[in-house]
Amino acid sequence: MADGVRVLKVKQSVLANNDKRAEEFRAELKEKGIFMINLMSSPGSGKTTLLVNLINRLKKDLRIGVMEADMDASVDAETILSKTGARVIQLNTSGECHLDAKMTSEGFHGLDAQGLDLVILENIGNLVCPAEFDTGAAMNLVLLSVPEGDDKPLKYPLMFRRGDAFVFTKMDARVVFDFDVDKAKERILRLNPNAVFFPVSAKLDEGVDALAEYLLARVREYKEK
Amino acid sequence: MADGVRVLKVKQSVLANNDKRAEEFRAELKEKGIFMINLMSSPGSGKTTLLVNLINRLKKDLRIGVMEADMDASVDAETILSKTGARVIQLNTSGECHLDAKMTSEGFHGLDAQGLDLVILENIGNLVCPAEFDTGAAMNLVLLSVPEGDDKPLKYPLMFRRGDAFVFTKMDARVVFDFDVDKAKERILRLNPNAVFFPVSAKLDEGVDALAEYLLARVREYKEK
Repeated sequence: MADGVRVLKVKQSVLANNDKRAEEFRAELKEKGIFMINLMSSPGSGKTTLLVNLINRLKKDLRIGVMEADMDASVDAETILSKTGARVIQLNTSGECHLDAKMTSEGFHGLDAQGLDLVILENIGNLVCPAEFDTGAAMNLVLLSVPEGDDKPLKYPLMFRRGDAFVFTKMDARVVFDFDVDKAKERILRLNPNAVFFPVSAKLDEGVDALAEYLLARVREYKEK
Repeated sequence: MADGVRVLKVKQSVLANNDKRAEEFRAELKEKGIFMINLMSSPGSGKTTLLVNLINRLKKDLRIGVMEADMDASVDAETILSKTGARVIQLNTSGECHLDAKMTSEGFHGLDAQGLDLVILENIGNLVCPAEFDTGAAMNLVLLSVPEGDDKPLKYPLMFRRGDAFVFTKMDARVVFDFDVDKAKERILRLNPNAVFFPVSAKLDEGVDALAEYLLARVREYKEK
């Protein structure tokens, strides 16, 4: 493991208490002026790559911390640390397929979030379970990669209902995959009329600026209120 | 919904009883001479596309039934029916992220499996939960698509431990994605020394014959014993 990556084992709370716990944690974050993003997607949709690109764009304006959730690995935390220098903690869920509010809040307190403006939770790669648990985040950011297909909102509706903003990743892969952006948007909007969309290609460095600007505006708006 | 697709709602049993239930169901399948495959992967790894190609290759030699699991859609069952004519049932898990032995056995009894040689369960697209539940299948077939990346065995070890055979899908996408087949194999073999591998491209129609032959041999061997 790289130096400086802390690994914390986090345990699930009782599901019934999760909503209450999430509200309390959200209030604590608000009090401290820290905007939290819950980043969710399938495995391999490009969460970590996008995160590296976003942090390197935002770090001149915001002090950023990252919580990397994995079942029992720490490769992502090491990547974030080495490529961005952001404050990072690895959360191990011991096989659980999601983070709940208790686990997230424990991770947050392990991160030493003093003075941060933005904390990003990279949730477990999964389109099912993470959607069922409010983590206390101010925003759910959901990624859908071009190779996964534009039909995923039909098959995993809860995730697409729970998202606030959606990023279509690996847009450069449309040279080999059929992915109808309009169809994907329409399917998500049917579940979630307030959804906003950001098509990006980390490889071609396209679209990430627009997403970074949007997030910066959201963080500033949150801190001013 | 297309004509002829039956949709069944299946409910989870208590986890502690699952292993016993799975063994009983496996014995029932053996008694009936029906080989069952549990097909697992991330969302959008190409399970349904591979299934269509496999069935169309195997249907001259084997009588095949399919159980399509989804949280609340039935698009995959319709695709299988219209593109292969195979006997198919749609299992809806009402939000559950996996199939257990009870749900699978209920699905099987709903399928009318009389006279079948091979039943394929297309599990929920998820690299986490489905790995935790023995369905009673004779074989776990796990797909990993090139766009997901060769690091997935490091991050979702249980799934790669539980697989018997592994299919690397969307091999044609290596023109846009780095995916080191040797590295992926090595990572899986470290978890699972008996793993066998099939790189395929459904788009270029490459590698599916080898997989179909392997499965046919496994079904015949099972029925002879």
